[in-house]
Amino acid sequence: MRNLLDTKTLARAEAIRILDVAEDMRDTQSREVKKLPTLRGKTVVNLFFEDSTRTRISFEAAAKRLSADVINFSAKGSSVSKGESLQDTAQTLQAMGADAVVIRHGASGAPQTLASSGWITAGVVNAGDGTHEHPTQALLDAFTMRKRRFGDDSRGRGLDGLAVTIVGDVLHSRVARSNVWLLHTLGADVTLVAPPTLVPQDVSAWPVRIVYDLDEAIAGGPDALMMLRIQLERMNAAYFPTEREYSRRWGLDAARLAALPDGSIVMHPGPMNRGLEISADAADSPRSTVLEQVANGVSVRMAVLYLLLAGERDTNDTEEGAR
Amino acid sequence: MRNLLDTKTLARAEAIRILDVAEDMRDTQSREVKKLPTLRGKTVVNLFFEDSTRTRISFEAAAKRLSADVINFSAKGSSVSKGESLQDTAQTLQAMGADAVVIRHGASGAPQTLASSGWITAGVVNAGDGTHEHPTQALLDAFTMRKRRFGDDSRGRGLDGLAVTIVGDVLHSRVARSNVWLLHTLGADVTLVAPPTLVPQDVSAWPVRIVYDLDEAIAGGPDALMMLRIQLERMNAAYFPTEREYSRRWGLDAARLAALPDGSIVMHPGPMNRGLEISADAADSPRSTVLEQVANGVSVRMAVLYLLLAGERDTNDTEEGAR
Amino acid sequence: MRNLLDTKTLARAEAIRILDVAEDMRDTQSREVKKLPTLRGKTVVNLFFEDSTRTRISFEAAAKRLSADVINFSAKGSSVSKGESLQDTAQTLQAMGADAVVIRHGASGAPQTLASSGWITAGVVNAGDGTHEHPTQALLDAFTMRKRRFGDDSRGRGLDGLAVTIVGDVLHSRVARSNVWLLHTLGADVTLVAPPTLVPQDVSAWPVRIVYDLDEAIAGGPDALMMLRIQLERMNAAYFPTEREYSRRWGLDAARLAALPDGSIVMHPGPMNRGLEISADAADSPRSTVLEQVANGVSVRMAVLYLLLAGERDTNDTEEGAR
Repeated sequence: MRNLLDTKTLARAEAIRILDVAEDMRDTQSREVKKLPTLRGKTVVNLFFEDSTRTRISFEAAAKRLSADVINFSAKGSSVSKGESLQDTAQTLQAMGADAVVIRHGASGAPQTLASSGWITAGVVNAGDGTHEHPTQALLDAFTMRKRRFGDDSRGRGLDGLAVTIVGDVLHSRVARSNVWLLHTLGADVTLVAPPTLVPQDVSAWPVRIVYDLDEAIAGGPDALMMLRIQLERMNAAYFPTEREYSRRWGLDAARLAALPDGSIVMHPGPMNRGLEISADAADSPRSTVLEQVANGVSVRMAVLYLLLAGERDTNDTEEGAR
Repeated sequence: MRNLLDTKTLARAEAIRILDVAEDMRDTQSREVKKLPTLRGKTVVNLFFEDSTRTRISFEAAAKRLSADVINFSAKGSSVSKGESLQDTAQTLQAMGADAVVIRHGASGAPQTLASSGWITAGVVNAGDGTHEHPTQALLDAFTMRKRRFGDDSRGRGLDGLAVTIVGDVLHSRVARSNVWLLHTLGADVTLVAPPTLVPQDVSAWPVRIVYDLDEAIAGGPDALMMLRIQLERMNAAYFPTEREYSRRWGLDAARLAALPDGSIVMHPGPMNRGLEISADAADSPRSTVLEQVANGVSVRMAVLYLLLAGERDTNDTEEGAR
Repeated sequence: MRNLLDTKTLARAEAIRILDVAEDMRDTQSREVKKLPTLRGKTVVNLFFEDSTRTRISFEAAAKRLSADVINFSAKGSSVSKGESLQDTAQTLQAMGADAVVIRHGASGAPQTLASSGWITAGVVNAGDGTHEHPTQALLDAFTMRKRRFGDDSRGRGLDGLAVTIVGDVLHSRVARSNVWLLHTLGADVTLVAPPTLVPQDVSAWPVRIVYDLDEAIAGGPDALMMLRIQLERMNAAYFPTEREYSRRWGLDAARLAALPDGSIVMHPGPMNRGLEISADAADSPRSTVLEQVANGVSVRMAVLYLLLAGERDTNDTEEGAR
């Protein structure tokens, strides 16, 4: 694997390979072999143009367990904020020895630009770009669904026929987009539930079914119900209901939790707004996979870094002269 | 040891055990064996809701010398500031692999809540909570007093009969509180010197003697004189004298330094306001243990992390499913 | 080597020794031996009173490749901003185990003060102080010139007879100052080009030639043309031209790039203001050594840390009692 930029163009075989390697990583960790020497001497740079402590720490933990060195580069207060271009920042980090760049950026497409420009030969991992994609989040979600469904018999499998319902502000959510593409590739049936004002205009081109009523969607009996995080700062915008209204109509409360079929799971990418899109009952119920998602996130990111850096990298680019 | 939350409930035997292990750590370090493999593969998270570069670095250095991985989590700009609960933050960190959480929090009791809630099984170390406690500071102070008093013959000993005088803003000081409880447990006699407005209301329940005049306290011949740091931002509050007045009445100057008995030491938790609560003469005198306290702080924190993470942890909690 | 404070007092033999060790470091890195065990157990503290992500990361990468532990201390939000003295901060860091302190400070002379005061025995590296010096930048620039000129036959050599032209805001540039002194020591001929208002008053005491016209300087046929970074925040000051005027008269554009003699190189310390002091053509041309400078920066800083920490340190100071 050369880069991980999105799930839309990720082939089924490659997605399953990542999930299978993540299984290996998870197994190794659970046997108390917490530190693998695999990436010793490799340097992973977390290049974050937006704050995201949670995602940054997950990648940092993943890299360190593979014995890589990690350098955190927050664009705030750096030369980037003094007007340096993405090209110069990235080339500088590579010249300092970065083997992989994990990038979080407010602009949709920035990781793609970085990877396809030929500016750098280091591997690029998209850790969230604008409203575009957040592929490792979708991979860890798929890993979690597969694990809950198939347990120790997960390897090699997709999610064929799994019914997944995603609820919330789909319009602004890169998590929803990455999940839609990956779940479709893995064979799942995806339903979106959103307030009418928060459905993307081009959604008819997505491989999904749309429902505007959460209770109707729950009556459909989803295997997995994924609640998106509400960005509170958007709550006062014209297209948004009040918090109370949102919670009443699109929040997962105790009654809706009870209406879910046996064996179905409740997912949330975190951080949760307890009492808004998800009640404490739901968040802490045995159906909730919230903490498994976090733990699996480290395994999945270990797998991605491993596939990017430990194997033969599929590159025909000339190595940079100065290194 | 399961957690380290306070010194008030720390048994004498356990306190002495920590100090003795810290002796081992200090000895090892002085033999140029600066890096021990003991905690390789363990992850220590510094979860700081308040800035404290000094304390954070001390824990970081301690963890790294034991070969643990360290992840720094500053709550500023993180999802915590977006309203995530302490429960979710802590459970997320544990799900990412944290074996110990070193927590600094503005609210008294937050570490206790974290440890007693059953939210996490990771070890919790209180690195300062509100005006409540700062137990590793008290332990490093006790270590320093014991070392100055008994030298290489320190192991196994308490501080029985040692006369310790603590001077300053006791009302707001978690350092003072942690010292009072630990020193009492170790058998020392504690005297507090403070402006009348800066004495806690419930001090009659503390195992201390109170004096309002610093010169009188010094005339009593303390073995250790501990000057608390003045929080300058409190200087204009109603209950506080002016800087000049404070310095004149409760500051340690050259004359008071000279009045101390032979063999007595001058302590300060740092950072010092030179010229306010302590003069440069006093800070740099051979009596001053300020830098020994800092160095011993690393040894004591190594001991605490070691006892938390290397031994058999005293826990009956179920291990979290996802790890 | 005991400290690295400036290039003005750096002897030729010592400068060449640093460059030669940097060659060794560079060779080792290029053989995919990215991690050397040399400084295992040593602690390097980056003590940065000014933000400089780029320089901080370069030192951090250098230290980690030598297996040292790195602790980043940003003075913002720390006790330093609460009024702690440089002496107390430095002594605290050493007491915590710092073997070397890499200091960036807004005040010219701060690293010198730290090193000559006797406050600490740890090695001090100046990572930029006020408008005074930035010695590792000059060393990496010299390394880059030497490498481009002599290739694999660089070891042991100076830069005798090399014509180097430095262009821009010399008045405020510590990079220019460090380069002038080091280049002079290594035998190069240095020409400065600057707007008249941006020439230092004492420049007649510098071993340089001054020219006010960039085209005239380029016609002179420099072997290396070093463009300084423009600090945009100074652009509105009384002594400064407009951006357009600056770019037209002192910027390196395509025409000037074409006028350079064969074999001459274009340097920039970064981050670049593309389109201001340097055009994209020039920045990305084969003459440009910008990324080589960044990569060589890591090698040079590895060499400096190695010489400071791995060898016999030239010190008669008493070791601090508490460690």
